[in-house]
Amino acid sequence: MYSQAEKEYFMSEALKEAHRSLEKDEIPIGCVIVKEGQIIGRGHNAREELNQAIMHAEIMAINEANQSEGDWRLLDTTLFVTIEPCVMCSGAIGLARITAVVYGAKNSKFGAAGSLYDILSDQRLNHRVAVETGVLEAECAQIMQDFFRKRREKNVTLKNETTED
Amino acid sequence: MYSQAEKEYFMSEALKEAHRSLEKDEIPIGCVIVKEGQIIGRGHNAREELNQAIMHAEIMAINEANQSEGDWRLLDTTLFVTIEPCVMCSGAIGLARITAVVYGAKNSKFGAAGSLYDILSDQRLNHRVAVETGVLEAECAQIMQDFFRKRREKNVTLKNETTED
Repeated sequence: MYSQAEKEYFMSEALKEAHRSLEKDEIPIGCVIVKEGQIIGRGHNAREELNQAIMHAEIMAINEANQSEGDWRLLDTTLFVTIEPCVMCSGAIGLARITAVVYGAKNSKFGAAGSLYDILSDQRLNHRVAVETGVLEAECAQIMQDFFRKRREKNVTLKNETTED
Repeated sequence: MYSQAEKEYFMSEALKEAHRSLEKDEIPIGCVIVKEGQIIGRGHNAREELNQAIMHAEIMAINEANQSEGDWRLLDTTLFVTIEPCVMCSGAIGLARITAVVYGAKNSKFGAAGSLYDILSDQRLNHRVAVETGVLEAECAQIMQDFFRKRREKNVTLKNETTED
C-alpha cells in the first residue's frame, strides 16, 4: 500500500479532476486509478456536459484505465476518489476487480461504500475491495460545499429576478 | 403501462440483443429502453469484446438512449432486460431516472432489484423505480443456462486436452 504522502499526492490529483468538473459547473468530484505508482486512468463528473447519466468520475476513470491496460480487469490497482462512491460506482469498482479504494469525504446521502450500503465488503459478491477514507477529507468536502452554496445563492438570485419581472 | 403482449414483444427484442452477446461468446444478456412505445436504446453485454468492465447490456442501452434523447434524464421510460440487474446497473437505472424496469429471470447470485439488494425501491435514494418480473422468464433463463453449460463442457474438454499433452 502507499505511504500517507503518496496517498495525499494521488488524492490531490483526484482533486485536480474535481476542479475540471467545477469549471464546467458540474458537481465537483474527481478520481484517479493508480497501478504500481502510476496513474492509469483519470476521470471527473461530466454528466451534464456529455448528457450521460452514468458519467461519474469513477466510471470515466475505469473506462480510461480499461483502455490504457487493454483489459477490463484492473487487478492490483487503487482507486482514489474525492467523495464516497454511489451505488452504481461501487458496483462498477467491484466488477472491474479494483483492489482498493481511498476516498476523501463521506457522502451520507448517496454513499455506498460505508454510508447507505457497504457494497465493497459484501461477502456475497465475488470480489471484495479494501476501503480507506479521510485522505485530504477537508479539501474534498470543501469543494462540494462551495459548489452547492453557490448554486443555492444563484437559485435565490434567479428566483428574485423572476419575481421582479 | 404496456399490455402483456407489448411487454412480451419488447422482451423478445431484449432477447435478440442477448443473442448478439451469445454470438460473441459473451454472457448472453440483452436490454431495450422504451418510451411511448418506441425503442430509444438497445444494448447487450459486451465486456470482453470492448474490454470495458462496465459494459453490461443496461449500461449500453442507457448510453444509447441518453444519446438519442439528447438528455441524461430518461423520464417516462421502461427498461426491459432479460436478467435481473446487478448493483452497478440498478444504480445506473436510478441515476438515469428510468420509470420502470421489467426483467425476465432473477439472478440469485448478483441481482440487486430484489435478490441480494432492492436498490430500485430504496426510499433513502432520490429516485424509485417500479419493478416487474417474469416476462418470458423461461426463455431468458434458458439462454443463460445453455451458455454456462457449454462453457463448463468446453472447460472440461480443454482440461482433458491439457492433461493429455
